[in-house]
This record gives sequence, C-alpha cells and structure tokens, in this order.
Amino acid sequence: MERVDKILSGGIVLTMNAAMDVYVNGAVAVKKDVIVAVGTADAIADHYIADELVLCDGQVIMPGLVNTHTHAAMTLLRGLADDLRLDVWLIGYMMPTEQSFVNPHFCRLGTKIACAEMIRSGITMFADMYYFEADVAAATAEAGMRAVCGQTVLKFPAPDAASYEDSLQYTRQFIQDWKDHPLIVPAVAPHAPYTCTDDILSACADLAKTFDVPLLIHVSETRQEVEDSRTEFQMPVVPRIKKLGVLDAKTLAAHCVHVDSGEIRTLFNHRTGIAHCPTSNLKLASGIAPINEMLGRGLNVGIGTDGPASNNDLDMFEEVRLAAILAKGATLDPTVLPAKQALLMGTRLGAQAMHMGEITGSLEVGKRADMVTVDIHTLHNSPKFSRDEDAVYSQIVYAAKSTDVVHVMVNGVWLMRDKVLLTLDEAALLAEANLLAREIDAFLIAREGSLLNKLIAIGGVAQTESFEIQVKSRLPQTVNAEAFVAPLLADERVQVVRKSHYRQYDTYFTFLDETQGRVRYREDDALNAEGDVTGVRMRLTYTAPSKEREFDRAVLLSRSQFIAPATRPLRFYREYFRPNAEHEVQKTRHRWHILYKGVLFYLNVDDIIVPQVSGTFVEIKSQTWSKHDAEYKASLVSELLTLLGVTEDMRVHKEYIEFATA
Amino acid sequence: MERVDKILSGGIVLTMNAAMDVYVNGAVAVKKDVIVAVGTADAIADHYIADELVLCDGQVIMPGLVNTHTHAAMTLLRGLADDLRLDVWLIGYMMPTEQSFVNPHFCRLGTKIACAEMIRSGITMFADMYYFEADVAAATAEAGMRAVCGQTVLKFPAPDAASYEDSLQYTRQFIQDWKDHPLIVPAVAPHAPYTCTDDILSACADLAKTFDVPLLIHVSETRQEVEDSRTEFQMPVVPRIKKLGVLDAKTLAAHCVHVDSGEIRTLFNHRTGIAHCPTSNLKLASGIAPINEMLGRGLNVGIGTDGPASNNDLDMFEEVRLAAILAKGATLDPTVLPAKQALLMGTRLGAQAMHMGEITGSLEVGKRADMVTVDIHTLHNSPKFSRDEDAVYSQIVYAAKSTDVVHVMVNGVWLMRDKVLLTLDEAALLAEANLLAREIDAFLIAREGSLLNKLIAIGGVAQTESFEIQVKSRLPQTVNAEAFVAPLLADERVQVVRKSHYRQYDTYFTFLDETQGRVRYREDDALNAEGDVTGVRMRLTYTAPSKEREFDRAVLLSRSQFIAPATRPLRFYREYFRPNAEHEVQKTRHRWHILYKGVLFYLNVDDIIVPQVSGTFVEIKSQTWSKHDAEYKASLVSELLTLLGVTEDMRVHKEYIEFATA
Repeated sequence: MERVDKILSGGIVLTMNAAMDVYVNGAVAVKKDVIVAVGTADAIADHYIADELVLCDGQVIMPGLVNTHTHAAMTLLRGLADDLRLDVWLIGYMMPTEQSFVNPHFCRLGTKIACAEMIRSGITMFADMYYFEADVAAATAEAGMRAVCGQTVLKFPAPDAASYEDSLQYTRQFIQDWKDHPLIVPAVAPHAPYTCTDDILSACADLAKTFDVPLLIHVSETRQEVEDSRTEFQMPVVPRIKKLGVLDAKTLAAHCVHVDSGEIRTLFNHRTGIAHCPTSNLKLASGIAPINEMLGRGLNVGIGTDGPASNNDLDMFEEVRLAAILAKGATLDPTVLPAKQALLMGTRLGAQAMHMGEITGSLEVGKRADMVTVDIHTLHNSPKFSRDEDAVYSQIVYAAKSTDVVHVMVNGVWLMRDKVLLTLDEAALLAEANLLAREIDAFLIAREGSLLNKLIAIGGVAQTESFEIQVKSRLPQTVNAEAFVAPLLADERVQVVRKSHYRQYDTYFTFLDETQGRVRYREDDALNAEGDVTGVRMRLTYTAPSKEREFDRAVLLSRSQFIAPATRPLRFYREYFRPNAEHEVQKTRHRWHILYKGVLFYLNVDDIIVPQVSGTFVEIKSQTWSKHDAEYKASLVSELLTLLGVTEDMRVHKEYIEFATA
Repeated sequence: MERVDKILSGGIVLTMNAAMDVYVNGAVAVKKDVIVAVGTADAIADHYIADELVLCDGQVIMPGLVNTHTHAAMTLLRGLADDLRLDVWLIGYMMPTEQSFVNPHFCRLGTKIACAEMIRSGITMFADMYYFEADVAAATAEAGMRAVCGQTVLKFPAPDAASYEDSLQYTRQFIQDWKDHPLIVPAVAPHAPYTCTDDILSACADLAKTFDVPLLIHVSETRQEVEDSRTEFQMPVVPRIKKLGVLDAKTLAAHCVHVDSGEIRTLFNHRTGIAHCPTSNLKLASGIAPINEMLGRGLNVGIGTDGPASNNDLDMFEEVRLAAILAKGATLDPTVLPAKQALLMGTRLGAQAMHMGEITGSLEVGKRADMVTVDIHTLHNSPKFSRDEDAVYSQIVYAAKSTDVVHVMVNGVWLMRDKVLLTLDEAALLAEANLLAREIDAFLIAREGSLLNKLIAIGGVAQTESFEIQVKSRLPQTVNAEAFVAPLLADERVQVVRKSHYRQYDTYFTFLDETQGRVRYREDDALNAEGDVTGVRMRLTYTAPSKEREFDRAVLLSRSQFIAPATRPLRFYREYFRPNAEHEVQKTRHRWHILYKGVLFYLNVDDIIVPQVSGTFVEIKSQTWSKHDAEYKASLVSELLTLLGVTEDMRVHKEYIEFATA
C-alpha cells in the first residue's frame, strides 16, 4: 500500500487521455501536485491509502476545463457596452475606459473576480492577454489557478506602456521574474497583426524563442482584418506572421475565423495552437471559424470564452456546448463535432493548444493534479442511460451547467470544495468591484453627457475658438465661379494667396437637445483644373451652439469648433454618437484666400447639389478679434460684395444645413 | 390603502410592456391571480398594503420566460441518443422507444420533471406538443404552470392512437374537457406538414377554429422538407398549409428555418406566431431561421427550447442568449437583436406568438401574475453600470444564468421561493425517472445487441426462413443470357413462369462480430427489353449466418432472412447500423422462374460489374423442405446444368460479396 495525499473515488472518471479511457466506478490518486494513479475505484483502493478520501458518487471526475483565450481583468468592464459594432465597442468604449482606469490594482482585482468565476465553472487553467500582466500573474497565483499570462505589446500607447519598446522591456522582465513559477507560465502577447508593426511582431517572436515561452496573439478575427492585410501586405494574415517568425514560437492564435485551407496547413505545420471563441465570434458578428477543417487537419483547437466584456461571462460549459452545436449548424451536418470531441477540445486539446499538454489537460499518471468533479444527478442532468458509452460526454456537454461543478483542484490543491471557494473572498471582491464600477460609471456618464467629451474620448481633437465676420449671399442663378470672381481678382487691391476647388460631402448629426451642438462628418475631395479628384480628406467637426448677432448688415459669429481627423467610417460615428437625426449637404466649393487692402478674407463660391437649392452661394468670411476690427472688416466685406456685383437683397441668413432640415 | 395579497418590492422591475417601462426601485402588487399595480416601490407602498411583502433588493423582477416550443415529457429521453442525423435520431431511436414506452404515466412523469426544470429556469408558460396531452395538461396543472397543450395528430400510428381519426376524436374530447381551465389552454397539434395528409391538416384547422383554440405545428424545419413539399405539392410549405386553412387558426409555427420573404409575409398577414428554436436548429443542423427579417416584418417571434431530447435542456436563459448572439453572427451585424429585444422575444413576444398576449407575457395591470425574480448580484453578474439604461437587459441576456432565478410565481401562486420548488418533489421525480430509464436502457441494449432487433425496431419487417438447394457456376467468358438459356427453354420439359431483367446495386454492411450476420441494402432497377429502367425498388435484407453443407455437389443452404422495404436513404442505414465495413456489389441479372418436371427453379444469369470479376455467373436455386426432397432437386439441378452446357469444373462456392471482400 502506497500512501498518497488525496484520493477522489466513486465517480465516473473521464480521463480524456489518448485512449479516452473511462472508469465508471473510478478513482484518481494524488500525491503533492501530481496524479499518481487513475483506475477503477477497487484497483486504487487495493494499492493506495490516502490522507484524504473524497467520495464522488453521482459525480463525474474529469480534467479541469481549459479556457484558451480570455482577458481576465475585463470582468470589471462586463456589461459596460453591448450590442455595438467591434470598433465602436473597442475604440469608443473599451479603450478610453481602459486608458483611464486600467492600473495594477484594476488588473489584480479584475483577475481575482475572473478566477472566482472560472473556478466556479470548472476551469483550472486559462490563457490571458492583458496589461500589467505581472499583476494578473500575481492575482492568479494567489487564487491558485494555472495560467499562461501573455503581456500585451502593440503599436499604440497602452495603459501600462507609453511605447512598444517599454512593453517589450516590461515583458522581458516579467518573463524573467515568473518563468519558474509552478502555476504561472509567462508569455509575450503581440496584440494582433493589425495592431503591430513588422518590427514588433519580429521582436515578440524573438523574445518568445529566446525564453522558450508561449506567444499569444489574435489572428484573423474579422474579414476586414484579412482584407486590410491583403491590401497593405499583399497577403492574408497567416503568411505575414509566418514570414515574421511569429509561428516559429510556441504560438497560440486566438479566433482564426477567416483562415483558408492553405493557412490552416501552415498553422498545422508550425504546431500553432488555436483558441476557438464561438460566443465572442457570434456576439461581435465576426463569423464562424472553420474548426471542423482544423480538427480534421490535426490542429490542436481549444475553446476560449474571450474577455468577459465581449461574452459576457467566463462559462466554459456554455462555450463547449456552443462550439459543439455551432459546428453542426455551420456544416449542416449534425454528426460533426460530437460531444466527446467537444469536451476533448475543452480539456486536453486546449492544453495542447496552449503548449501545456505535457503537464495538464487529461487525467494521466505523471500529469499535474488539475481536475474537477461535476454533479450529474441534478434534475436537468436526468435521467441517465448506459446503452451508449458516449452518453456521459453528451450529458456534460449538452445538459450540464457550470453550476453543477462541485470540487475543483489545481496542482493538487483544493480551490473549491462543495461549491465553496477556498482561496478567494467573493463578497469582498464584489464590494470592491462595485465601488470601482461606480467610478467608471461616473466617468462615462460625464463623457456621454457631452458631445465634446465623447469626441475627445476617441482622440486627436484640435480646438478652434473663432470670432468671424461672415456674409452669405445667394445669386439668383447658377454662375461660373471663375468668371464670376474674375472682375474682383483683377482689382489691384486684391491679391490671391491660395485657390482651391473641392467637392464636399457633409453629414450633420443633430440631437434632440439642441444645446448639445452638432457634429459634422465632412469628406473633402480636392479637385484639379480638370475636375479630377487629387486628394480626399475626412474630418469630424464638433460645433457648439454659436452666438451670433447682426453687425452692420454682416453677421458676427462667435463659436467654438473642435476638429478631429475622421479616421473611421461614417458608420462608426453614427453608432458612436447615436444622433437623433442626420442631414446631408453636398456642394462644390471654389475657395480663394485673398488679401484685400492687406486683410485676409475667405471667398467661397458654392453650388449646392444636395439638398436641391438653386442658384450659386457666395460667402465672404474673415476672422476678427474686436468690435472695432469687426466694424472695419464688415465695411470691407461690403466693398468686396459691391465689386462682385452682389446686391444687398441677395443676402441670406441660413446656414446650408438649414436647407437640408427645412 | 387597498389591501392586496402580495407585493414584490425593491428590485429592478422590467415590465416588458409596450413602452418597455423600467422601475429601478420598483414593485408589483398582486391580488388573487392578477397584477393590480406596477410602479416605483414608493408609489406602490403609498397605495397598497399586502398580506405578503417580498423584498427583492438586488434582484430583477420580470415577467416569467415563455418557452414557445417543447415536448415536455421527453425529459425522460434526454441524452438517449445524440450527435445523430435527424432521421436516425427520430426514426432509429426516438420513435421506437416512444412506441414501446410512451403511455399516460410516462407523460405525467416526464412533464412533471420538465416543469421542475422549467420553473427553476424562470419559465412560467410553455407550448407543448406530445401524446396523451390530457396527462401532460394534468401534470402541468398540478405543477401550477401555465401551458398551451397541443395534442399531436399525424398520419402514422402514434403511442396514443392507432389512426389519425382516433387522435382527432381524442383531441376534441381533450379540448372540451380542458377549455375553461385557469392554467391550461388545450390545442390541436398536427405534427408537421410532411407527416400529415391534406385531410388531416384541414381537419385540425377546422377543429382549432370550431373551438377557438391554438393550433401548434412544426413548419419548414429542414431544407429537405421544403424540397419535398415543392416536389410533391409544387409549392413550399407555407403556401400549402395556408391553402388548407391551417393559418386561419390561432397558429403557432415552430422552427420556420427555411421560409422565404413571401412566406414570411403570409405568416405575418395571418398573425401566425413563430417559435424560434436556435439550439435545436443548430444541434440537428437544420440551419438558422431568418428571425431578423421576421421581426422586421412585425411577426411575433418567440423562443423555444424544443424537446429536451434534442437540446438537451429546458433552459430559456441559454436559449435567449443564443438567439441574441446567433442573429448577429448570421447577419454579420453585431447591432442586430440587442439584448432588450431578445428578452422581449423571451417574454411578451413569446406570449403573443402563443396567442396568449392578452393575459400574460409582461407585467401590466390586469394581466395574470406570472413573474420571476433573478439575482443579479452574483459574481458572474458583476459589476453593474448605470450609464446605459439597457445594461440591465444585457446583464440578464448575456451574463445571467437560469440558476440565478430566485422566486417564481404563476397565476398569483408561488411555485418557487428562494430556489426551493413548492409544487413538485424533485427527489421523488428523479428516483422514478431513473427507474424508468433503466427499463428503456435495457430495451435499447437488447435491441442494439442484435442487428435483427435493430432492423425490427425501424419497422416493416417480413421474415423468410429458407432451406435452399443452390448451385453457382462461373462461365469462363461473358455470354449473352438470352442466347445462353435458349436451348434450355426450348426443352419441352421446361416451362417459363416469369422472366425479369434487373440491374442490382447491393451494399453489404458487415460487422466485426461475424455471428451478428449482415445487412444488405439493395436497389433493384427493373429493365425492359430496351434496357430502360421501368421501376426501382429498395430493400433491406438482414441475413443471419447461414448453415450450409455440400450435398450431391450442390449446396444445401439453411438460412433466415428478414426483409424490409428500404424507405430511407442508404446513408440513414449506415448511420443507424454503424457497420464495421461496407462492400459494394453491382450486377445485371436475367432471372427466369421456370418449372422443370413440375418443380419451381430460379435461374439467374448474372454479369458482375463491381467488383471486377470476368465471366458470366449462372445460379440455379430451388426451395426445399426435406433431405429426400433436396436429393431429388439436386439431381434435377444437375440435369438443368447439363442442358445449359455447364460443366462441373465451372462450379464456384463463393458468394458475390466474397469477391468484393477478397
């Protein structure tokens, strides 16, 4: 009789080993952190005596579930913003909030909450990608879970690094500090091919190879990403990262929704692990990954919940189940991905995908004691049939819930017994989380309360406060702009500084509360003499409600404008600002910057295309800074108008958008 | 102050009414079975005093979830057979088991288990389609749940009726008995257009209209169903049932996976309710229903779990969540079906789809008190943000679990308090279910143990026990059959009874255990003189291992064969019998039934196409019943062979399949 520390006995043991051995009345013996025996309860009782014997009658004893892709600390952002397009969600909400709130404390707290939830749902190991990964690792180790912790590196400033060089340095230190830990495997996580330069990707690959640690990366999550890669690099995503050496590391690629057969072959040849995240891919409408083909090819495809802000939970029971049924729906073949194979993905294949298959993922002698038990005698798990020996897998995958998990052990240590967490104080974590949530809430409420703040949140804003003298007139018929201004430009007091010609497409967002001001999305197409487009520029302008007054028959306008380059499509801004209404204005604009008597004026000759408004509009503007200056410039404008032959009755006080809203 | 029976107070009240009113610190007052007030906790406290005040702080108070499609009693068949194609699952496993086990007791027990599970997951009303529906209704009423109970009618014999006329009679009586019950609405449920004749569909529609009760039916679940409808009726499914009056009733159509825009318009015009079953549709690989288009058109689309044998649970939280994310994935638009709308489908729209919207589905004054509370302060439901007022829907749909349901009330009566069921004894139900499961298990194990029993289970089997004298010879070259037999047929002692010409395609299923015998799937193409196919027949033959012995240079064969018409495709039988190997034999066969000296012989002249075997085979067979008779017939066979010019060295002892397996 050999003495061991713990024996779990009497349940159905699903070993998930290569032979998929099942012991209907089985047992597992554990000594320190290692599994020393797996077999029938009788055989184990014949050979081993334990300090602690745990009877698991009516339960399944199986390897812990492996969550191959998450951003654990994002539990603190769960439910913050949902049902949005990926870019609005990420750039409009997640990133601004992360920039303001993510710090070491945030990461520790968020990770602990994630660990509590994951332990409850039978997860014993996960792959994480986030910031301040040393704090994620510390919190995970404290909770007693096993994890591959990937420190994020990307080309933008991150909450934990002003530049990618800082991130790399941080990662190197992180790896050195943690590489011999019994629970934590440190890793480098270049965020994604589209958020990393070639240099970053190569440097990360080198780092991973130097220290022989995993490399975690998002790959081909959306169709757009693949199209952009083809445009920019003349190849899809996988060949690019292969070329940069990324696949030469122990790589774990998350998503891989849009990869073709050639790319799948490449991933297989490099032994790249895959993290399939079905809920996230559906919820964010990314698509359905071709996992049936990947599995057929022999890839190690694991399953991941993705971050709790895009799922919105960390429930691997739901995830394995969805993987199983979605694969059938996607291939229109109900025999695809049977329950047994789906659970294999959720355990051993997941561990293999994380390059951790040597030490965990199945109940085998010599592997670490990472295991859970599941009560399969609850109402929703009944009844039980023994005819089909695979029925137990079907029960776990299709009927059981995460709340049926009873005991959880990682590395030979109990993390949960009889549904009670042993390493984490849930009530305290909840209280802390809710305090932080209130701060985040206040931050976002303040931001959402003002268009300007929303604009600032997505960055790159330049402010212009302006006081302008402005006159707009409408000629009764359409005129040729060049011919129309020729007499004025011929005047010796006039000097042309610059001449330009545009087609302008404006979309105005207006809001129920008019005191909010409005947002304009403008596409400026610069035209050459032949009318061909020579350049396109998109700008976003926030205009606060202007104060204006009549001034010597001209209008004196004082207003604040905030201008930002519009780097994202109009659709993004529509979904981000959620205007009450939209108005289109299209026009061609001939613009002259002229000096008249030494004063700079903008002279615009505009033909409105949308809405349908007849005649040509002439605008003369000049910036001003005092009442006296405004008076003087107003008189100059009158002179200019006279020189142009524009009479006073032609003056209009409407802005173009008012024609659109009329 | 008005006295009421119960007040639920202090939670976030989601009314799900037309205005989607939410009371963050709200309350609901109930008198008898009716909601008498909904509002802020303060307003309710100002006007009402209750016998029972239930504080729901930290919970959401919302209408109970509505499960618009299930077969409740099938809880007893949960996990019996999974990961199979629909026909194998249904015809190979479900139907044979149902024929043997479904009786009134089964339906009561199974329904009670379903009710327990549904109450636990916050469901207050469901739509059922099954057999012995009066027993389903009785069990449901005993459990205290609300249901529309649809009695199944179909063209095949059912566990509760030998013919559809019996079913109709039963249904009429059932409706009369139950139509004034406070919880149960009886209904007629023609199973599906493809399992019902025109007569049945019309008769069911008439019955539903006569009694003004709902009509429940499966519609366009699979692509095959639609294709078959086009072939047989020259139209897709919806126009056919419209023509038969089915849509003139208060109809609830389950699935509607394969309906086009025209059909959706028809369904809308007839106010047909839709039961969307995303898990079932994925798991059985039926496809993804176009619910976004249906909702856009204004249809009442509810959500259903389908039966627990094809899901495998009755968890509406999972179902609503899947509906929400699947719609996004299917349309590649993450803004489609936001959480709020998904929960609406799970409550009020579902009730409207069931034609029960007048009395339940939302928390409104005058409606029945059908409601649940959900604990939203668990770990996986944290933290909480208030910026987005729709965040609470997102929390319920994307993060909450069925196990977060705390209290459940139907018709003003508590069915669950603090997660304890009040109307059902779970332990007793479980014990009973497991006893029954053991019987079903034994039945199926016995069946699976023998090919013959498996064949019998799918029906229509005819047994032939035969003792045959048989000689097979192989001519060294291919001959023309007609010319070859001409000398024999010219003999005055020979009389031709029948002549036929076939092309035969055989697939043999063989099994590791040869004592099991084998199964042959044969397609017989009857050919006319020109060689054109004039008829096709498919037959399935089970052959037990034969006993044979040499007998006067002929072979005496004794064997049992069981023949059944093969009404399903080869693929079905392959998945149903799961052979160890398959072997193909194709041949042309000229067959003569001849009388020689008054004795009937079968004379086959066969050319084997697959596998490649040269020469023509000649078989002569005759049935026999005694050693003496066999001796005599063997001698006659020798005479016939001599007349055909077949010498003894040409005899072969192999069966055709042995050439294929060689």
